[in-house]
Amino acid sequence: MTAAPLRLGIAGLGTVGAGVVKIVQSRGKLLSARCGRDLQITAICARDRHRDRGVDLSGYAWEDDPVALARRDDVDVLVELMGGADGPAKAATEAAIDAGKDVVTANKAMLAHHGQTLAEAAEAQGSVIRFEAAVAGGIPVVKSLTEGLAGNRIQRIMGVMNGTCNYILTRMENAGLPYAEVFDEASKLGYLEADPTLDVGGIDAGHKLALLASIGFGTRVCFDEMELEGIERIAIEDIRAAADMGFRIKLLGVAQMTGRGLEQRMSPCLVPANSPLGQLQAATNMVVIEGDSVGQIVLRGAGAGEGPTASAVLSDVTDIARGIRVPTFGIPATDLQHATSAQVSIPAPYYIRIALADKPGALAKVAAVLGEAGISINRMRQYDHAAGTAPVLIVTHKTTRAALDVALDGFGATGVVTGDPVSIRIEQV
Amino acid sequence: MTAAPLRLGIAGLGTVGAGVVKIVQSRGKLLSARCGRDLQITAICARDRHRDRGVDLSGYAWEDDPVALARRDDVDVLVELMGGADGPAKAATEAAIDAGKDVVTANKAMLAHHGQTLAEAAEAQGSVIRFEAAVAGGIPVVKSLTEGLAGNRIQRIMGVMNGTCNYILTRMENAGLPYAEVFDEASKLGYLEADPTLDVGGIDAGHKLALLASIGFGTRVCFDEMELEGIERIAIEDIRAAADMGFRIKLLGVAQMTGRGLEQRMSPCLVPANSPLGQLQAATNMVVIEGDSVGQIVLRGAGAGEGPTASAVLSDVTDIARGIRVPTFGIPATDLQHATSAQVSIPAPYYIRIALADKPGALAKVAAVLGEAGISINRMRQYDHAAGTAPVLIVTHKTTRAALDVALDGFGATGVVTGDPVSIRIEQV
Repeated sequence: MTAAPLRLGIAGLGTVGAGVVKIVQSRGKLLSARCGRDLQITAICARDRHRDRGVDLSGYAWEDDPVALARRDDVDVLVELMGGADGPAKAATEAAIDAGKDVVTANKAMLAHHGQTLAEAAEAQGSVIRFEAAVAGGIPVVKSLTEGLAGNRIQRIMGVMNGTCNYILTRMENAGLPYAEVFDEASKLGYLEADPTLDVGGIDAGHKLALLASIGFGTRVCFDEMELEGIERIAIEDIRAAADMGFRIKLLGVAQMTGRGLEQRMSPCLVPANSPLGQLQAATNMVVIEGDSVGQIVLRGAGAGEGPTASAVLSDVTDIARGIRVPTFGIPATDLQHATSAQVSIPAPYYIRIALADKPGALAKVAAVLGEAGISINRMRQYDHAAGTAPVLIVTHKTTRAALDVALDGFGATGVVTGDPVSIRIEQV
Repeated sequence: MTAAPLRLGIAGLGTVGAGVVKIVQSRGKLLSARCGRDLQITAICARDRHRDRGVDLSGYAWEDDPVALARRDDVDVLVELMGGADGPAKAATEAAIDAGKDVVTANKAMLAHHGQTLAEAAEAQGSVIRFEAAVAGGIPVVKSLTEGLAGNRIQRIMGVMNGTCNYILTRMENAGLPYAEVFDEASKLGYLEADPTLDVGGIDAGHKLALLASIGFGTRVCFDEMELEGIERIAIEDIRAAADMGFRIKLLGVAQMTGRGLEQRMSPCLVPANSPLGQLQAATNMVVIEGDSVGQIVLRGAGAGEGPTASAVLSDVTDIARGIRVPTFGIPATDLQHATSAQVSIPAPYYIRIALADKPGALAKVAAVLGEAGISINRMRQYDHAAGTAPVLIVTHKTTRAALDVALDGFGATGVVTGDPVSIRIEQV
């Protein structure tokens, strides 16, 4: 061991922070062998100094202020595990960069909002920002995309990247329970963020997708232009109906470069039940990357939790210790392009569910509306009438969102469709 | 672009070599952005100078001798795509290392047999050897294991890493055809190596597993001590019977560090049909890595072919261009441990198929033999008698291979078991 130890300052000692400390303490010899030098935690910082975190912190200098931690002379790498798009996390990251230090972070919100500025600042200083832990937990997806698939023009990135949403959706299907009930369950189990909209509104997963899109397409992170829709309106009826037709509903992120610009969506989609994405159960994450040379690569693993996230943090720390220095988003931040937002997503088949009045000719009227909108039907099923209306499920052939909206509006005028029709995109995976 | 171009000498212009040339030619700008410098092919070498490879080679210096190519002053990186454990591939690799150049290779056989020597030589010279393309085609598994999961003590590595074998096994099941017939099909389709034993005998996949085991467990590559069994003896009856019981048969590699030493097996195994490994169809590859922090990571993609393999080669080239320099097997080669071979694999459930004579008390005798060997039965099925004997399928609880061998021997003495019993390990995935 001739190289000097790499000295870590850890800001944030929640589950993940404590997990990182545990690994550094228990796997020191293994990490030193892999890094070619020792890893050494020198200083730590968290909100509450006196909480028992199940790990011995007595050997580390304590700082109350993460910015002070980031500036310490005995810290080479700031490990930022506090979270939050702004506030102390951003201040500490900026202070670290300003002092020429490297940063390892699990903070998807901060990078989704400030990634460009922070990456430019880091690269101007010769620092690196690494964020494997920010996307899909322990799955080495940032590394795979940035380095492992660097020979490809990336065509599409898809992912189920919020374990809580996938837990809710699979639990609804497996137990036959409505959304509200499973949401409460998840809440009691501690699966939800303090602000649950971050999870069920698709925001957290959207942050992750925006970061991957930047790497994949060489564009500036543009989370603000992402089409975002959460799972709050997914009814158990749709989950059942989708299953009947051979599909599962997933909160699916899709990013692809189209002729019209960059398309980024995080929204509920139907995927074939027997596809790798369709088979994904519970809180597991999956990212699918399609490149022009490699074809389709699927990566799957735990998307959250102490061990998996700490594993990703250590991967970044090990890289820095080994001297691996790649720009934050794969190419110099100043070379990242401003992506034009595609505005409209490329055509796809859609799933439609309507409640049809029990009147002669009702189905014909619905079919006529679709035909007039230029939408052709792939499959249609009408179920037993209940309470005067019959559920009708339609799977369309490929159509545009605009044509679909025309049809959905048109249903109202038929006088035979009760309530609001449900429509969900079917993603071809 | 201030850094000097990285100059490549490509030895071997088969499918993969030509694929690499195509990517460098067509994606030059993208690669330069990602590498922070230009990639430039300066010299090439292959057996037949005049074959049309569908790509313009006129701009590159030609060498007849790969060793001369490796030694050229205008070559920084030898891209070795000739194959073969010894001969020109090894000679050129040694020449490149000797001249202080880096090597990117897709040659699993060479590294499985000479990896230790070559890695030591490279590290003594300050050169790197990269081999992402040698294992599981375009799946970035070498990188994921070496770098992405560097914070983990690796517990188990499993993989379906020979596409031809998986094609044969899934085709047998889907078409209900016997091994010999599908083997001939695969041969006509050009799916088999010139020496098909490399594929169907598990040798090629075994080479790959040995390389991953070295990285995962910090041990010297020890292919010679791997337990190797091919798929030649897999009968369509076993594929059907396994399916009936909810399993699929895969040529599965398993490497794990046990209390008795390193266990490495490449052999047909039953895996649950609904597991990611069980669902793997056709020529697709899958690698499953289990680490103490990350849990289980699954990587899936095309394991061979021009695009995927060239993608992996370019990933290594890009890494070198970016200045990423990690020891061949993750830690310095001289620090890799001599692994003690476990000799016996850890206990597992087994699938057994026997042909039982149509005599009173026959099944009882079989059950008694198992009981005497200390093997308890999880499930047993006897099917309709045909031609005087009935197929009997048994799924045991966990047992040792030694106890199983006692039982298999014991069946002979019962006088009610016809022919040789079949036994296949059930891997718990």
